[in-house]
Amino acid sequence: MAGNSRDPGRSVTARALSVLTAFDVDHTRLTLTGIARRAGIPLATAHRLVGELEMWGALQRDADGRYSIGLRLWEIGLLCPVNSGLREIALPYMQELCQHTHDNVHLAVRDGMEAVYVEKLTTPRAVPIVSRTGGRLPLHSTGVGKVLLAHAPAAVMHQYCERGLSRQTPYTITEPGRLGRELQGVRARGYASANEEMTLGNCSVAVPVHDGSGAVVAALGVVAHSVRAEVSRLVKPLLPAAEAIRGRLVEHERVGYDVLSR
Amino acid sequence: MAGNSRDPGRSVTARALSVLTAFDVDHTRLTLTGIARRAGIPLATAHRLVGELEMWGALQRDADGRYSIGLRLWEIGLLCPVNSGLREIALPYMQELCQHTHDNVHLAVRDGMEAVYVEKLTTPRAVPIVSRTGGRLPLHSTGVGKVLLAHAPAAVMHQYCERGLSRQTPYTITEPGRLGRELQGVRARGYASANEEMTLGNCSVAVPVHDGSGAVVAALGVVAHSVRAEVSRLVKPLLPAAEAIRGRLVEHERVGYDVLSR
Repeated sequence: MAGNSRDPGRSVTARALSVLTAFDVDHTRLTLTGIARRAGIPLATAHRLVGELEMWGALQRDADGRYSIGLRLWEIGLLCPVNSGLREIALPYMQELCQHTHDNVHLAVRDGMEAVYVEKLTTPRAVPIVSRTGGRLPLHSTGVGKVLLAHAPAAVMHQYCERGLSRQTPYTITEPGRLGRELQGVRARGYASANEEMTLGNCSVAVPVHDGSGAVVAALGVVAHSVRAEVSRLVKPLLPAAEAIRGRLVEHERVGYDVLSR
Repeated sequence: MAGNSRDPGRSVTARALSVLTAFDVDHTRLTLTGIARRAGIPLATAHRLVGELEMWGALQRDADGRYSIGLRLWEIGLLCPVNSGLREIALPYMQELCQHTHDNVHLAVRDGMEAVYVEKLTTPRAVPIVSRTGGRLPLHSTGVGKVLLAHAPAAVMHQYCERGLSRQTPYTITEPGRLGRELQGVRARGYASANEEMTLGNCSVAVPVHDGSGAVVAALGVVAHSVRAEVSRLVKPLLPAAEAIRGRLVEHERVGYDVLSR
């Protein structure tokens, strides 16, 4: 196989980054051939780039010859403001919530048209859920997503609905007008709930996390079994926790804010 | 300033990676000029590379024009086996420990000659400590570090001592022979303790986390105020937690093991 790129217009940096993009949650360990195929680059190019990335620590080679994301890339990724600012500040309050509720506890931010889960805590008694730290879920079918969409600029809501509201369960809101009224309610009440709208049997409740300027920078939520779920009981501990996080964010002014400005 | 590199021998990939290396825990937000200076590349090169990295999501530009590590790099970094395997598995047990002890709880792995903190949980009642998730500390002056060094190949211990044992406090073990006897004791007792050896006033206790093959893949520890610290009381909840994590690692065979093989 030729060592020159199939796409000579792509820069070397773009091709090195495409090697990293070959990895995702369903592909955490890849052979060299797998990386080349998923990155869309010739094997010889992949070989050279993977060698450089491995030497630097962006990739690591396991005993069986497969590659995975390296420790050094993980360490540098943690410097991202949502982790080093927002998550570090929120984590102790999330632990308290998890301990108090025995349910899954989420902290999420909006990145474009998706909710990104900055942290997820769980307990052995919590209901199993699909979210994971660093994962993404829709904005219209989860508690945290509804909070983030309700406080996004109107243009975001418009664009989000234009792309179509995917149906996750029979209870997902898929009609833009109904979603608009739902989000009005979220703003008025100060919290969002999603009952079996993402996963059958699960109910999620979430509240906004504000920064010092009053902007909503994140959503804090719990997910419980819908049979056990009583929205008012679930909201109660969320509100003081979100307020405590806001207080700490004000202390750490400018940390972890910028993720929502894109 | 010229657009060509000061060091033409460095590959484009290496220079792109050097842009990322410009960021560390004391430099999470940098101007373009700051990136060029810290990466050792011309401003024009930095401008081009930063543009490509920003477009891909490895960097993000904040409202004031400074750059920080981007959400996408954080997300890909989380696919690293120590996070996606080891940390995800250990987190609920760490939460229980934190809730039970009200102390700082650590999970660490060895990377070469350092302990890397995979996760750190804390509570408002815990004693303040210097560690952070993704941070690194010496192997000879912390509880988790002693566990990791005690179970490392003899060549690692030899090389570690050759580099000199840095003195963190007046109580740090800086004499190789004494450290060797201390680590023998760690292996014999099944746990390590470090009393004011890293930070005055703090005591840390740690136990090994084994995988299915019996290899030590991580260390689980607590850090408490040395006045309150009673080693036997601190060790007690650590042992069943480490054993529970081992059980889950066996279930998830091959996940999160490889970090210690380098």
